[in-house]
Amino acid sequence: MNIRIYNARILTMEAHCEILEGEIQIQGDRITYLGKEKHSDDIKWDKEIDAEKNLIMPGFKNAHTHSAMTFLRSYADDLPLQEWLYQQVFPMEAKLTEEAVYWFAMLANMEYLTSGITANFDMYMKNEANAKASVDSGFRTVLCGSINDFGGTVREIEEEYRHFNDYDPLISYQLGFHAEYTTKREILEEMAALGKRYKAPVYTHNSETEQEVADCIERYGKTPTAFLDSLGMFAYGGGGFHCVHMTQEDLDICKERGIRIVTNPSSNLKLASGIAPIKKILDMGIDLAIGTDGPASNNCLDMFREMFLVTGLQKVSLKDASAVDAQEVLTMATVGGARVMGLDDCDILAEGKYADLIMVDLHQPNMQPINNIKKNIVYSGSKQNIRMAMVAGKILYQDGSFLFGIEPEEVYAKVNECIARMKKEG
Amino acid sequence: MNIRIYNARILTMEAHCEILEGEIQIQGDRITYLGKEKHSDDIKWDKEIDAEKNLIMPGFKNAHTHSAMTFLRSYADDLPLQEWLYQQVFPMEAKLTEEAVYWFAMLANMEYLTSGITANFDMYMKNEANAKASVDSGFRTVLCGSINDFGGTVREIEEEYRHFNDYDPLISYQLGFHAEYTTKREILEEMAALGKRYKAPVYTHNSETEQEVADCIERYGKTPTAFLDSLGMFAYGGGGFHCVHMTQEDLDICKERGIRIVTNPSSNLKLASGIAPIKKILDMGIDLAIGTDGPASNNCLDMFREMFLVTGLQKVSLKDASAVDAQEVLTMATVGGARVMGLDDCDILAEGKYADLIMVDLHQPNMQPINNIKKNIVYSGSKQNIRMAMVAGKILYQDGSFLFGIEPEEVYAKVNECIARMKKEG
Repeated sequence: MNIRIYNARILTMEAHCEILEGEIQIQGDRITYLGKEKHSDDIKWDKEIDAEKNLIMPGFKNAHTHSAMTFLRSYADDLPLQEWLYQQVFPMEAKLTEEAVYWFAMLANMEYLTSGITANFDMYMKNEANAKASVDSGFRTVLCGSINDFGGTVREIEEEYRHFNDYDPLISYQLGFHAEYTTKREILEEMAALGKRYKAPVYTHNSETEQEVADCIERYGKTPTAFLDSLGMFAYGGGGFHCVHMTQEDLDICKERGIRIVTNPSSNLKLASGIAPIKKILDMGIDLAIGTDGPASNNCLDMFREMFLVTGLQKVSLKDASAVDAQEVLTMATVGGARVMGLDDCDILAEGKYADLIMVDLHQPNMQPINNIKKNIVYSGSKQNIRMAMVAGKILYQDGSFLFGIEPEEVYAKVNECIARMKKEG
Repeated sequence: MNIRIYNARILTMEAHCEILEGEIQIQGDRITYLGKEKHSDDIKWDKEIDAEKNLIMPGFKNAHTHSAMTFLRSYADDLPLQEWLYQQVFPMEAKLTEEAVYWFAMLANMEYLTSGITANFDMYMKNEANAKASVDSGFRTVLCGSINDFGGTVREIEEEYRHFNDYDPLISYQLGFHAEYTTKREILEEMAALGKRYKAPVYTHNSETEQEVADCIERYGKTPTAFLDSLGMFAYGGGGFHCVHMTQEDLDICKERGIRIVTNPSSNLKLASGIAPIKKILDMGIDLAIGTDGPASNNCLDMFREMFLVTGLQKVSLKDASAVDAQEVLTMATVGGARVMGLDDCDILAEGKYADLIMVDLHQPNMQPINNIKKNIVYSGSKQNIRMAMVAGKILYQDGSFLFGIEPEEVYAKVNECIARMKKEG
């Protein structure tokens, strides 16, 4: 498909970029032109879209989530963490089938699109079903290894790494394990060796709760970051999800090893985990991205909520209303996410990059007046402002409709059927 | 107009209510029937709406805001509080005209509707223009007196009280002043006398920042709550906006005097003011409501953001994932707001009450699966879910369109024109 979007404001998200006025041309899955309006009469356009002066920008990257956990949304909230996890979440997860994961992940992909998210970094089980849901919905997914003592082997992670990195242009895979606190030392050492063999970064949940850090210190005499680093886990970089309770030494290790950090502020509030030291991480020049976490803990997959919280929580916890400005937040939500996920061709809007982009509706009351569009998006934006979301040159969501060929009501019916069955199994 | 909404889920927000299935009938500005489906063939319906199993519930009440401050949205964020207020906000406010306030307030009313808010408690200047904007847009507004040392007299507050409480069924007025720290003792004493004369509650900003409390203690040897109470300000109750830094003694006074509290969590984050002790206030049985604060400090007028923060911030600050559950938050956002604002006929859905209600779209990915609708709204809801908003029996917003007779583009043009003029005046 050749698509031309004209009469647009364009935010490329290149460093220090200003908002341009003009058009963007897409041929196949790539951006082929971006700049002042030109008609390019030599190209046959399948679609010419008048952006009506709305904003075109890179899609948001959801850099940490567990998509298929949609089935646990609002299933057991307002409970203490341990009771929630052991009495509610684990018993239901044990009943998951491939079919269920397929529909639950499909539902998440739809929700991502409504929030302008065009790619996710997904850590969960039954990756074949998850990948199929993304390919069938045209969505871009980076899978993340998730083994722990309760499931999977390092051998399987290696197989998945090779399989999913040669699966479909929309799918890629990064090495990973669930967390230090769920994974015995022997597996961790094998994972570190695997990372070295493939010269690949390794990703994991890290220092989400105070308890987790205290337990690791008791077990190994080191924080999770220092302990994993001592095993050579981050020889080729990697990333940590959450990273709420990080010492200065932990952050120094991140800086030195190129360990990227993905923050999940809503989840950290809802599960009472704490507030991550985002300003400090930014000041140290460590790469930062934003994730929603899974819908069991958040419960919604909404980058607008996360963006406001990334800055709002720093302002209140540092007692400084100037901490972490809107431009920094937008960078985390787009370029930062792409960097963490290894999506080098999805970071900014430029010729040759993948056409993973969104149209933000500025003709809504919450985007008016036009004093400052970037600040409007971070401080005032909502899902309601997403007019269109495109992945790899295909429009998947536009004006409230999903265009990838599966009816929403079919997805909802399948999802509710699967859950009813799982609940019934008792 | 006679309107019948059938095939609906209905959340009346009566205490301990469950969600019903059935229909709701509206004649004129009131609800005339609510219950199982019946066709009532004797009534001529102007509109019969199939709710498609979506949820009908009371509109949210925005219990503290400054509507016309939309003009300062994203005008000067990410700045220290004093610089923001004295170098950016005050100089621009000095240039406000009646016409500007009219359009700025109209813009806010539109934004409220997109978030399912059907009434606001508004403290600002040029109330005649504000009231006119609400009447012209069909929106319900409770005005709040806002005098301080820089503008207004108690005599004028009294005139406004009489004038706006006999103005239009959509408009009412409560006694109020800006804050202890902006208002000299003499005026405060006159305000207290006025409250007693009219046997009326008195409202004000209270204990928003640590500095404000410390300054009051230095000035009068008492916290703002204790000092104002010592003047007899709350002889007939009243309310405090923000109430972030409250002592146990302050809360005891609130309980004893019937002082209601309106929390504004986004604003308190963004301006680095702190986190209000909501759980404690709830446990004491003090009436609680939720406000967005004005768009200069928040920046958006979105009850969904506020609802998530009310509970999320308690969970994280108390390290208790079970603190302040979804039902309590929904109560604050509807019944609590109505109580604070004196809107006794807009609190719940029941026969005889005003038809101030919204339709929440459950056919969106973020509302699926249907494990628990109330929790879905609080933890996962967004503006995108508001299918319809009705005030006093009139549908003002439906499926993304504003139906009160003024085109959004006209409002945006007027708003941007007014601001351009104000900026130019230098």
